[in-house]
Amino acid sequence: MADHNALPLVILAEKFASLPGIGMKSAQRLAYHVMSMDDEAVESFAQALIDAKKNVHCCKYCQNLTEREICPICSDDSRDNRVICVVESPKDVSAFERTREYNGVYHVLHGLLSPMDGITPDKLRVKELLARISETGADEVIMATNPTVEGDATAMYVAGLLKPLGIKVTRLAFGLPVGGILEYADEVTLYRALENRNDM
Amino acid sequence: MADHNALPLVILAEKFASLPGIGMKSAQRLAYHVMSMDDEAVESFAQALIDAKKNVHCCKYCQNLTEREICPICSDDSRDNRVICVVESPKDVSAFERTREYNGVYHVLHGLLSPMDGITPDKLRVKELLARISETGADEVIMATNPTVEGDATAMYVAGLLKPLGIKVTRLAFGLPVGGILEYADEVTLYRALENRNDM
Repeated sequence: MADHNALPLVILAEKFASLPGIGMKSAQRLAYHVMSMDDEAVESFAQALIDAKKNVHCCKYCQNLTEREICPICSDDSRDNRVICVVESPKDVSAFERTREYNGVYHVLHGLLSPMDGITPDKLRVKELLARISETGADEVIMATNPTVEGDATAMYVAGLLKPLGIKVTRLAFGLPVGGILEYADEVTLYRALENRNDM
Repeated sequence: MADHNALPLVILAEKFASLPGIGMKSAQRLAYHVMSMDDEAVESFAQALIDAKKNVHCCKYCQNLTEREICPICSDDSRDNRVICVVESPKDVSAFERTREYNGVYHVLHGLLSPMDGITPDKLRVKELLARISETGADEVIMATNPTVEGDATAMYVAGLLKPLGIKVTRLAFGLPVGGILEYADEVTLYRALENRNDM
């Protein structure tokens, strides 16, 4: 925004532009939109930012984001806490919960190994996973990181730490997406689908 | 977001989703991003929202957004305040200023006529334009609203009010965009370009 624009608007647009996926043009549009909002709506937006940052933190056990000390999933007695699904981020917990089929608990790593970007094992919540397992034990740990280079590396790394402890470590199945069209599947997916074929 | 998500995060995501062009999925991603920001960064974002809403208001003369009583353009003595460019929104002022060619002043209507959406002339800053012209006079009013149904209707309406006052009212030229390709121009644009052809 050029210097004929009001400074507080320029600052607000810059804040929006600092968010992921929002360019300067969209940020400017959002800043103008804020000007058309009611005073109360703007104040409650500002308060929501502060509240989320202040009141939400990581669950003592699974490291998922929650406003309690222990998240609703970890404190739910009907869930099997001997099966731990290890995911990259809180978004992934939401994705699994939407299936309504998983009854174990989770562990959120808050990232994936990526030494090139300086993300080494100590930057992830791996020691919390080990501490938790040594405390309460586990029958199975499901590595549910993305099927990417970083996701696979992280899964391998964590599996390497857990297997010596005698814990069963599994990985999500890779294959054709349900409803997908074979013709459009990439080679690696198709290879994995062939390799992991099941009896009918 | 399902109920296993922390409430303050759900509220924050809803605030982001209420902004134009941000869907629920992006809003959730933005809310998670806020969690990874520093406390100070979140506070300064919240403050930027409050500051912009509180300190920015409409210029007494041109109705553009500014934190002063009179905006930098209206208070700039080197600009010709006898030529008024009438635009829909503050974004359009920025667009004209980027050309660095226009030396008149502006008038921001804050909308376009759209009776179907309940936007009647009294919702726009038309009376402020008339008051301003009756006070300081004007040699020319350039109607620079978008070449859309609403933009054209608004331009016609305002022109109809100003012409009886003996003021010269002009409309932006429509034609081929510079660098555009004739083959891809729509029929109306091409017709306007033909109709408004100039001597070489």
